[in-house]
Amino acid sequence: MGRIQVAVLGATGMIGQRFAQMLEDHPRFEIEGLYASERSEGRRLAEALRVRDHVYREETLETRIRAMDLDAVAANCRIAFSGLPSDLAGPTETALAAKGVAVFSNAGAHRMDDRVPIVVPEANPEHMEAVRDQPSYSAGGFIVTNANCSTTGAVMPLKAIAGVYPLKRVFISTYQALSGAGYPGVPSLDAVGNVVPYIGGEEEKMESELGKILGGYTDGGFAPAGPRVVASCARVPVVDGHVESLAIEADADMDAETVREALRGFRGEPQRLGLHSAPDAPIIVREEDDRPQPVLDALAGTPWRARGMACTVGRVRGGGDIVKLFLLSHNTLRGGAGGSVLNAELADAMGLLR
Amino acid sequence: MGRIQVAVLGATGMIGQRFAQMLEDHPRFEIEGLYASERSEGRRLAEALRVRDHVYREETLETRIRAMDLDAVAANCRIAFSGLPSDLAGPTETALAAKGVAVFSNAGAHRMDDRVPIVVPEANPEHMEAVRDQPSYSAGGFIVTNANCSTTGAVMPLKAIAGVYPLKRVFISTYQALSGAGYPGVPSLDAVGNVVPYIGGEEEKMESELGKILGGYTDGGFAPAGPRVVASCARVPVVDGHVESLAIEADADMDAETVREALRGFRGEPQRLGLHSAPDAPIIVREEDDRPQPVLDALAGTPWRARGMACTVGRVRGGGDIVKLFLLSHNTLRGGAGGSVLNAELADAMGLLR
Amino acid sequence: MGRIQVAVLGATGMIGQRFAQMLEDHPRFEIEGLYASERSEGRRLAEALRVRDHVYREETLETRIRAMDLDAVAANCRIAFSGLPSDLAGPTETALAAKGVAVFSNAGAHRMDDRVPIVVPEANPEHMEAVRDQPSYSAGGFIVTNANCSTTGAVMPLKAIAGVYPLKRVFISTYQALSGAGYPGVPSLDAVGNVVPYIGGEEEKMESELGKILGGYTDGGFAPAGPRVVASCARVPVVDGHVESLAIEADADMDAETVREALRGFRGEPQRLGLHSAPDAPIIVREEDDRPQPVLDALAGTPWRARGMACTVGRVRGGGDIVKLFLLSHNTLRGGAGGSVLNAELADAMGLLR
Amino acid sequence: MGRIQVAVLGATGMIGQRFAQMLEDHPRFEIEGLYASERSEGRRLAEALRVRDHVYREETLETRIRAMDLDAVAANCRIAFSGLPSDLAGPTETALAAKGVAVFSNAGAHRMDDRVPIVVPEANPEHMEAVRDQPSYSAGGFIVTNANCSTTGAVMPLKAIAGVYPLKRVFISTYQALSGAGYPGVPSLDAVGNVVPYIGGEEEKMESELGKILGGYTDGGFAPAGPRVVASCARVPVVDGHVESLAIEADADMDAETVREALRGFRGEPQRLGLHSAPDAPIIVREEDDRPQPVLDALAGTPWRARGMACTVGRVRGGGDIVKLFLLSHNTLRGGAGGSVLNAELADAMGLLR
Repeated sequence: MGRIQVAVLGATGMIGQRFAQMLEDHPRFEIEGLYASERSEGRRLAEALRVRDHVYREETLETRIRAMDLDAVAANCRIAFSGLPSDLAGPTETALAAKGVAVFSNAGAHRMDDRVPIVVPEANPEHMEAVRDQPSYSAGGFIVTNANCSTTGAVMPLKAIAGVYPLKRVFISTYQALSGAGYPGVPSLDAVGNVVPYIGGEEEKMESELGKILGGYTDGGFAPAGPRVVASCARVPVVDGHVESLAIEADADMDAETVREALRGFRGEPQRLGLHSAPDAPIIVREEDDRPQPVLDALAGTPWRARGMACTVGRVRGGGDIVKLFLLSHNTLRGGAGGSVLNAELADAMGLLR
Repeated sequence: MGRIQVAVLGATGMIGQRFAQMLEDHPRFEIEGLYASERSEGRRLAEALRVRDHVYREETLETRIRAMDLDAVAANCRIAFSGLPSDLAGPTETALAAKGVAVFSNAGAHRMDDRVPIVVPEANPEHMEAVRDQPSYSAGGFIVTNANCSTTGAVMPLKAIAGVYPLKRVFISTYQALSGAGYPGVPSLDAVGNVVPYIGGEEEKMESELGKILGGYTDGGFAPAGPRVVASCARVPVVDGHVESLAIEADADMDAETVREALRGFRGEPQRLGLHSAPDAPIIVREEDDRPQPVLDALAGTPWRARGMACTVGRVRGGGDIVKLFLLSHNTLRGGAGGSVLNAELADAMGLLR
Repeated sequence: MGRIQVAVLGATGMIGQRFAQMLEDHPRFEIEGLYASERSEGRRLAEALRVRDHVYREETLETRIRAMDLDAVAANCRIAFSGLPSDLAGPTETALAAKGVAVFSNAGAHRMDDRVPIVVPEANPEHMEAVRDQPSYSAGGFIVTNANCSTTGAVMPLKAIAGVYPLKRVFISTYQALSGAGYPGVPSLDAVGNVVPYIGGEEEKMESELGKILGGYTDGGFAPAGPRVVASCARVPVVDGHVESLAIEADADMDAETVREALRGFRGEPQRLGLHSAPDAPIIVREEDDRPQPVLDALAGTPWRARGMACTVGRVRGGGDIVKLFLLSHNTLRGGAGGSVLNAELADAMGLLR
Repeated sequence: MGRIQVAVLGATGMIGQRFAQMLEDHPRFEIEGLYASERSEGRRLAEALRVRDHVYREETLETRIRAMDLDAVAANCRIAFSGLPSDLAGPTETALAAKGVAVFSNAGAHRMDDRVPIVVPEANPEHMEAVRDQPSYSAGGFIVTNANCSTTGAVMPLKAIAGVYPLKRVFISTYQALSGAGYPGVPSLDAVGNVVPYIGGEEEKMESELGKILGGYTDGGFAPAGPRVVASCARVPVVDGHVESLAIEADADMDAETVREALRGFRGEPQRLGLHSAPDAPIIVREEDDRPQPVLDALAGTPWRARGMACTVGRVRGGGDIVKLFLLSHNTLRGGAGGSVLNAELADAMGLLR
């Protein structure tokens, strides 16, 4: 059986480059083309490359960027992975779905749409079924989104803890990496030796997306659930890896060790199905005092192909009505391209790509 | 009237250097000597200097460090400003107070002692009276501490907001500067491009000191009060200036604009008394989306001699039971040497140094 | 006698902000207006501010930016300080000079023009006379440029050493600060933890400007002189202050101590004339092993108003035909706005502004 | 045939950790033990780990550090790889060689000793024969060193260019990474936003080691040769990868393209022999304007196991008597542990380890 042909949209961006990384040696998906704006047409991927930790194959680096052509994509590809900027993503993804393409998107444009799920496969794989209710589904096309990068980091630990305690509220402050702003993104004079306590729209996304993901989907509608989220988002001079400080409030008398066990033991559908890009353990719990750290833990995840796909949690402490912890999630892998690739693998396993 | 002779203890450290800065042209206090460990004896202050933003006078730079000699300090100085490491500060400060010296300390050693106040003059000037109950007071000696650097940042805004709403809990996550760890302090391989989500003892200090400061002092005892504090502390690659993310919970229906007004209008005893190192406005409220930032706001404070003594607050938002904000306070000026100098000015104005 | 009215062009840029700083309390020059592109019109200076180490007066911060209007500038100002980008600077400066305005420019556009001098007042004050040969001079207008920021750092030390040894060649490698690229300038993903070994046109500027400055001016023409320059330029993650590594070759048997003495004793016309922005000692020689460093020495220069105007030299070593040293010069003060302000002060003292 | 048992000395340091990385899956060498100071005894390698870009196998991470015991090392190991600090390396390495162990050292202690070669296998493989003249050789023991990290970067390009032009002098300025100073190494307050223009002993090493490597070995003595080296060394806030700026002077009329071709075509004994850790192309020549950059090129080298073993050269420019270029070499891989592992592979291929 041949591999499924896929397009990468927004291929020269930070997320696009990570899509190329995760799809380089994929057993089920094959890159048909890297698509970007007309301005980038004809450039080699190598010329855009800012990823510091992955060594691409020579032929990947030499791949020529193509200008976006929706008909060509629809004609040649079953799947489009979208790393497009949000304004462009909206109409492009809708059009592709209408043409019968399964779109797995990192963009925020459609995340809060009815019938478009935000899927984090370890947390809400059942939401994937919502695509059957999308109007384009009869033609084979649909849209699935992954969560915003900072939301993603918090989803799995909250899901795990919600399994043992009834969560009430969660107070989150983020320490977000520069790669999250794309390239050129944050000017260096704003980054070196500085903290910028603002990321446009980020807090609102965290406060709305978590509820949609942790809630239910019935009769064509998403019913938000889960703890109330109070988020504060800031940018720090880190290259990759969002750190988040959480204070979790429950209607219960919590115990830190019970929380740690719930985190350590957490497994989801990707692990059960053995999805290609799924980490063996989706949450890694560190016992050291000073972890997680971006430079040491951003790429956490085994096996090798799932590096950057695990969430690292540390300093689980407190107890009673409030437990505190720090977590770290790779913002352009698990919180970006990797999240969408895992979604596509789940959809494939669920038979949605036939 | 001659100026009061003062000693700086721990003069080669980050806090010691800031004491020298703030005392260089002080109208009431005159540096009798800069004291440090025997190892530093005879070195010029210039050789230890890491302060990046202050231009010292040539004669200050040439000042020779003396080895600590408690009898000499007691014989020559009415005041000792202590920037000593905590283990050394404990016995040294006790001994100096017993010898009749008024000790204004940045060290944590005595902060939670009975009868030793932690004073932030805009918040709890009345606690200064506690020194009269210290056993050494009859001989003129006593100990006053300033709050830990991260506690300091939160005190004034919380005091201001507590004036308009009954506070219940405050969730704080910090983004703390490297200078807070002293020199050599944090290794560069742990700092460049990284976040370290741990500062030993810091969270415990924030959770206990705030209550002591915001509480009352009667009959020789401090009665903690104020909101419950839930603190998470992390180090970021910033040179000076601690950023803090606060989610403030009240038993009230809060309004962000009311909070902003309370912050803007906040004045305390130092402003009323016109203390030399007091900022005209102790809290500066920024309206921009992306402030405060360490590189732009750490040195906030007017007049010039009070730079680094104001707390900058921004992004006051939310409402109802929870208001969120970011604040920034200079950790070695307002949160270090400057805090103790202001305490000494207050004690002087209260007649405690006669 | 009233102060001379001056315009600042390109006022929202990194150099423009430094012009505002240096002119805030100037005894001879008064800011008539801050001019920038139409896009910035009406904004307050405060909104553009990226300068980290200067505390502007409140009224300076509130100054409204005006859209560039050459007729208005010519009607109201005797002087225009130009921090314009090079492409815009070319025609704008020519037009202003034609209208009788004395233009002191930081831009590269006219630096290599005939009859337009590049003046570093301590090195070649006599070149200022070239303005009398400019066609617009009869109407009172002319153009004077300061050297490129990396050239500036090397000029004074080379001039000083050329006074004691016949220089043959100088090999320069630079470690240039981010502020030199303006704002937004270098993307943070290219800056954090990185070196970029390329700055467009910079090496060519260093190799041509030094010869023009160190050469003679006669009969309307500049005759390059001085050592052959071999320059390599790189960007490092420093905010302000260009470091340069020099290997100086002479047709002589050099001695490091003689070089140090020549540097220490160096004084020029600005010191002789007591120009307002001139540092007491234009070159500061450090004896420590590990200086100069940007964070400690970029703002070198006394008195206070001349901070950032001195060049710091350290590690003078070697001997025989080659002496090595490191130097540091503030790229937006001495190597930018400060250089042009000092040029204007020199022109004023020479009677060219009547 | 079983693998050769090897010890890693100084295993918890930055170089020691890289030894563990390069030896993890080595076909010829097997780690018998990781040795460090008594203070580290019993700790797992994982607790010391600062390497950011390598994902160690779980069993490697769990390996317990042993306290140094020379008799145990001699009894169990044919080879000792030394990442010891220089003062400790001197006597330890001598003692081990005397006990019959082949020592491959990254330390500077013995580099300039008679009969101890500094080997960069692509440049001077024939120097390896010098070990036969060491007194301990009869017992099977000897010492081979790799060059200092900053020297290493320059060796291969200079060797390559010396093949086409007679080199006279080379002026080098370095931009060296923080990992070169070990851990804790450079304090973060000296690193963030700064350049430190001094690395103790580094310039002297570059100026003496290059001549020894490029010279000849006959009759028990090394005769220095090659161009005169004029070196200036500085530390920049980069994690891994030393950048060097070279101005190369020849007694010839050089052409930049000829230099590029010589660099591109350069191959040495490791490539001819197909040594395990040898990069296919030891020098990679980049054509882009702005390369090499540490974050993009430090890990250059194919195949995967040789990443960090290639030297990247860019901006080859100039001509006539002087050609300029920038180069980048990984300081703890090629310029550290990797250099010594490659030396051991060469010695093995030459039959010196029987």
